[in-house]
Amino acid sequence: MNSFFKPMMSRVVIFICTVSMTVFLNCERSTLATNDYKNTSLSIEERVEALLPLMSIEEKVAQMRIFHANIGVEADQEGNLKLSDRVVEKLKLGIAGIKNPGEHLDPVAAAKLNNQLQNYIIQNNRWGIPALFVTESYNGVDAAGCTKFGRPITSAASFNPALIHRMWDVVGREARLRGMHMCHSPEADIVRDPRFGRMSEAFGEDTYLTTEMVVSAIKGVQGDYDGLGNGTHIGAVVKHFAGYGQVLGGSNFAAVEISPRTLVDEIFPPFEAAVKEAKTLGVMASHGDLNGIASHGNPDLLTRVLREEWGFEGYVVSDANDIGRLFYFMKVAESPEAAALMGLRAGIDIDLYAEDAYAYLPEMAKEDPEIEKLIDRSVRRVLRIKFILGLFDDPFIDIAEVENGIRHPSSLSLAKEADLESIILLKNEQNILPLNKSKINSIALLGPILDNDTKDAFESVAGSNIKFIDEKGFQLTDEDDRVPNLLERDGKALDKMVAIAKNTDVAILFLGGDEHTSKEAYFNSALGDRATIEPLGAQNELIQRVKALGKPVVVVLKHRRTLSINVISELADSILDVWDLSEFGNESVARIIFGEVAPSGKSPVTIPRSIGQLPFHYSMKEINYKKGYLFLEDGPLYPFGHGLSYTTFEYSNLKLSSDQIISDGEITVSVTVKNTGKTKAKEVVQLYIKDDIGSVTRPDKELKAFEKIELQAGERKEVSFKITPEMLLFTGVNMEKALEAGDYTILVGTSSKEGITAKFKLNK
Amino acid sequence: MNSFFKPMMSRVVIFICTVSMTVFLNCERSTLATNDYKNTSLSIEERVEALLPLMSIEEKVAQMRIFHANIGVEADQEGNLKLSDRVVEKLKLGIAGIKNPGEHLDPVAAAKLNNQLQNYIIQNNRWGIPALFVTESYNGVDAAGCTKFGRPITSAASFNPALIHRMWDVVGREARLRGMHMCHSPEADIVRDPRFGRMSEAFGEDTYLTTEMVVSAIKGVQGDYDGLGNGTHIGAVVKHFAGYGQVLGGSNFAAVEISPRTLVDEIFPPFEAAVKEAKTLGVMASHGDLNGIASHGNPDLLTRVLREEWGFEGYVVSDANDIGRLFYFMKVAESPEAAALMGLRAGIDIDLYAEDAYAYLPEMAKEDPEIEKLIDRSVRRVLRIKFILGLFDDPFIDIAEVENGIRHPSSLSLAKEADLESIILLKNEQNILPLNKSKINSIALLGPILDNDTKDAFESVAGSNIKFIDEKGFQLTDEDDRVPNLLERDGKALDKMVAIAKNTDVAILFLGGDEHTSKEAYFNSALGDRATIEPLGAQNELIQRVKALGKPVVVVLKHRRTLSINVISELADSILDVWDLSEFGNESVARIIFGEVAPSGKSPVTIPRSIGQLPFHYSMKEINYKKGYLFLEDGPLYPFGHGLSYTTFEYSNLKLSSDQIISDGEITVSVTVKNTGKTKAKEVVQLYIKDDIGSVTRPDKELKAFEKIELQAGERKEVSFKITPEMLLFTGVNMEKALEAGDYTILVGTSSKEGITAKFKLNK
Repeated sequence: MNSFFKPMMSRVVIFICTVSMTVFLNCERSTLATNDYKNTSLSIEERVEALLPLMSIEEKVAQMRIFHANIGVEADQEGNLKLSDRVVEKLKLGIAGIKNPGEHLDPVAAAKLNNQLQNYIIQNNRWGIPALFVTESYNGVDAAGCTKFGRPITSAASFNPALIHRMWDVVGREARLRGMHMCHSPEADIVRDPRFGRMSEAFGEDTYLTTEMVVSAIKGVQGDYDGLGNGTHIGAVVKHFAGYGQVLGGSNFAAVEISPRTLVDEIFPPFEAAVKEAKTLGVMASHGDLNGIASHGNPDLLTRVLREEWGFEGYVVSDANDIGRLFYFMKVAESPEAAALMGLRAGIDIDLYAEDAYAYLPEMAKEDPEIEKLIDRSVRRVLRIKFILGLFDDPFIDIAEVENGIRHPSSLSLAKEADLESIILLKNEQNILPLNKSKINSIALLGPILDNDTKDAFESVAGSNIKFIDEKGFQLTDEDDRVPNLLERDGKALDKMVAIAKNTDVAILFLGGDEHTSKEAYFNSALGDRATIEPLGAQNELIQRVKALGKPVVVVLKHRRTLSINVISELADSILDVWDLSEFGNESVARIIFGEVAPSGKSPVTIPRSIGQLPFHYSMKEINYKKGYLFLEDGPLYPFGHGLSYTTFEYSNLKLSSDQIISDGEITVSVTVKNTGKTKAKEVVQLYIKDDIGSVTRPDKELKAFEKIELQAGERKEVSFKITPEMLLFTGVNMEKALEAGDYTILVGTSSKEGITAKFKLNK
Repeated sequence: MNSFFKPMMSRVVIFICTVSMTVFLNCERSTLATNDYKNTSLSIEERVEALLPLMSIEEKVAQMRIFHANIGVEADQEGNLKLSDRVVEKLKLGIAGIKNPGEHLDPVAAAKLNNQLQNYIIQNNRWGIPALFVTESYNGVDAAGCTKFGRPITSAASFNPALIHRMWDVVGREARLRGMHMCHSPEADIVRDPRFGRMSEAFGEDTYLTTEMVVSAIKGVQGDYDGLGNGTHIGAVVKHFAGYGQVLGGSNFAAVEISPRTLVDEIFPPFEAAVKEAKTLGVMASHGDLNGIASHGNPDLLTRVLREEWGFEGYVVSDANDIGRLFYFMKVAESPEAAALMGLRAGIDIDLYAEDAYAYLPEMAKEDPEIEKLIDRSVRRVLRIKFILGLFDDPFIDIAEVENGIRHPSSLSLAKEADLESIILLKNEQNILPLNKSKINSIALLGPILDNDTKDAFESVAGSNIKFIDEKGFQLTDEDDRVPNLLERDGKALDKMVAIAKNTDVAILFLGGDEHTSKEAYFNSALGDRATIEPLGAQNELIQRVKALGKPVVVVLKHRRTLSINVISELADSILDVWDLSEFGNESVARIIFGEVAPSGKSPVTIPRSIGQLPFHYSMKEINYKKGYLFLEDGPLYPFGHGLSYTTFEYSNLKLSSDQIISDGEITVSVTVKNTGKTKAKEVVQLYIKDDIGSVTRPDKELKAFEKIELQAGERKEVSFKITPEMLLFTGVNMEKALEAGDYTILVGTSSKEGITAKFKLNK
């Protein structure tokens, strides 16, 4: 048979199968089933093709839907399963997956529940198709009893991809031990607008840093892919494709306006690397639109770019209810059915949660043969993932392994290690930090971001010679989780805190934002996205009054969005920018404050002086700021990549192996870094490249490589980076990747602002 | 001869001419010249083609350059010409044009100077080619002794295109009488970011309103095109093509990031109408880039869209020095020569000011025959404009007409009339305004925006029964024009003003911004673009203290950028938003305050509560605000189209001629508007259309028509609008204009927020 006939033939085969199914639908299962899809000696593709023709249209569409466990997957404390009637009904056809079953149970109970649930599902659909249990994991598995790491933007400050790989390896293992198979993480969004409430779920403003972190996270959580089939890890679902971080005004669900070139050069790369390099199993689409096209209805994005250009073979899942939203929110579809068809055609394989979108597909398929073909396309992808994860062959957890596997001491140590590498020392006037335990008698721990454990943690680190007095003073928001309100200034609380500071040697102020002031904006939780990035409430007043006492003031800045901290920055002697650390965050902060470890975090964002400076990221085009019109104060408050240490580093001897590069060659850049202080410390050596002249306006500079090194006091090391032509590629005038001859400037240094520069030339 | 040979032949002809020229270059002028281009019985095209082959490459390129008169076109007070050696040297080859010759002279002297200058130019280049004298005219001719109107954004508030047509007719006449031929105005930019210092030079945030105003302005200044050839008017140069208002952060020269769809649907229309409907003679390119491509090097924009799609036949001029800037600022060209070639290829016909760009073209043309062809393309366009303006045939001004023609009483009345139609009453608690002359004894005129003429103007309007006490109190910025600084709070000045207010019946506060706090950002004038839109200095404190006296507080808000006036809005009893009025502004404000005329201006922008709400314009997509996350305070402070009157209007009886429209049909919408108060007044009846569901995410609503009507007390009028399919077109998924069947909602009312709604359906 020549190749011409092959597509024709497979169409005929499918047609015959469909007819057979209709005929045999009411027969006994055993007489109908061909068990080839259970044959482990066949390839995954063969097994998928064996199973698909057996399935009814209703069963197929069931493999394209995920529901949340909160609609009726219940359990007692030991994890014994109890299903609502609604869930029982749903599971008769099988299901693509269930979100967060057993999330509130301890890990062993969760594993038991999920074994029972999986068993029930397999037993109660005709073909015994297992389900995917899905979680999220931005700072550890989003479930009870798992290790809680710092948030992604916190870990990005470590500039240590190997560390991120190890953290997400723990996430993958702990999730799988609970019975999970996929996580709707990590976020590959580039977050540049601090008004956006979800900023801390991503890895910061920079494309390269985010790409490194996302690849490490996915490789970690998927066990370098090998962990999927051998049952030790889970699949990643990288999100939100694409441009979610660019919602206008930082407002969740808003429109996105971005040049096609920036999209390709700055927004796509972490996703592209997630697919090509990290082999992510899943991709989630973005809530918003992208230049007018709703992402959930965008075949150019979800099919042409993702699959045809990048070769993605996993599944694409909608964000919660977002296929239905094409109709009722985005208003780009005339009906729920039209929304379902739009999502299906675009390339959304799984409808997350909705009852009003893919639910209509079986009926619709009866009218239009194109629809079943598209359904088959998606079901193949979902089944394939289930085979890759080994769920047809080995669907259950070995309960005996759970207890020891989760919150293993090495995992908890890792959370602490990650904290210590992620804390950023923004400022340290007269080397106030580290505090000398032997010279201080009393310390005030003050401020609204203080928590119940802070004092204990400081005492455990500092020992009994220092007296700590803690006083939260006031809260920023009230207790109501659903609709928090900003609280009024509390003068008495301020007086009390100032009085405490007066009677202690040092004041450590815990400032920033609480959990309500920066989070995903949903329902009526209106503080999620914010129109201001100033510190809320009386925080500036607190530092002003404490500073007036004339004592050293250390600020621990805990937050989930970038804040414009002009007053704090001016008045504090030292600022530790800690974002949102692990469950051991207080201890980690105390260890840094007392000098057990020197801080080595670097800011993963540009810190602006005011909201009026936005958009403001270090890699923006030179033309945006060169005239200095908008930025009266000459630049940001702190630049991207900034972070001090307890020692100082001297950069010298910058050398290039050649001052010319050709299009298939490379250059090695080397620099000597010396620890010129008295403390062992880590430093992130950063390489930025600027294309001096391009056919399109080019970024001012771009981070292209970094390496975190450790140096003993007085030690020096040579650090080297390779510059390859691939690093110099960008999208040219005609929207094709271009490599342009000409001059380039490199900056090697300690931040995006400070370092040694050199030039090289690209000859094509 | 068949058509195949035609292009070949013309190439041959050009070649021969070039050779001839080279041969005869040193001959006497009279033997060389063929005078066909002077033959008025030939068409303009024939005359251009007759002249072009005579010209040397140096002469051609001279027709592609404009220099500023300040490099050496001088005059005594009577307008007698004196040229610097530099200018004499330049003029030997002829010149495309000169910017602002005689700008500081009175009109008669300027006309004399320009006649002498034109005569000199004609006499001193081989072919007697006249020059274009070029000005700007955002609020009247930018030269001494001409009528000064309100700024464009002020006049946009009139919502009265016929008025704008009359104003720009005056501009065109006054400019031509001074000897001008072209103006680098109007601005067709859509201005939505109040951080941008040039906001007041454009017509506001809305595409339709701007289009109406730009078309009226160009038709006015060009004398409906007829005025060009008969010597009464001047040519317009619409600017800045394209996207200049969209510079990131509102920062002059910054990059522009915009979806291709928004560009076509929202940014292009005023330019497209300027070309197609108003027949603008010129277009100026934009400083910035547009999605990575520098506008001055963008053939897609300047040639494909502008000429091939829209049929533009005038010339494109660079913005000041911007061709050279492709090299030294935008960094998209490797050398000044490459910048020149990039600009030439893109379609820039005239290089404004630069010595380092098109100056190189003659040498470059000797190396590359493509270049002379491109030069010829541009020179044809420039010569054509000179013929259209009649400059070859009648280059001089009739001095006798100048004195009476400029600042004609009807022009000055028009400036006042325009003021009265442009003042916006934002707020009027308990109808504090208009003030009743007979019931008030004394009025305090206070605040930093007060000028020397304010008190006199108020006295002349109010008569002698009211005592006015004026006190500017403090300034916002110091006197230095070049590098202004913000001034510190002046407590004594505040005390003095409050004391005055205490002893008067009513306080009128003149607040907003001064001329330094919002202007084009250039050189070191760092206050041009601003990172804050709060009222500067102690203005909020002033109103707080005056309000505390318990007396009526009227605010006159004078400004050139949108300000977030939360405190003013809360405390003022009445607010007149006057933007920046004509030279008779104080008188106009007084006439409104004392009720001679009821205000009828409508805000041409959305007034946000804070900079954190940006971007915020009424026509943004519903998805941007529907969730309410960012805009804690539920919407803007004042919506687009808002403006109160001294009377009230009742809208009723909204009728559609049909609830269905077909693709070649139309619907008539009518509404009855009744003046339900006791004062004669004007009202702007506004029609907005919303596409309920589209294939791409659609604007929340769009202004599609408006009409300004006058109603006597108690009078009612029926106002009707046609809805045509053209109004419903937008750029669909495939970037082609789409007309989509479905439901549409209309709002007819007094602002973008307030009115009566109805629905209709489009059937294709």
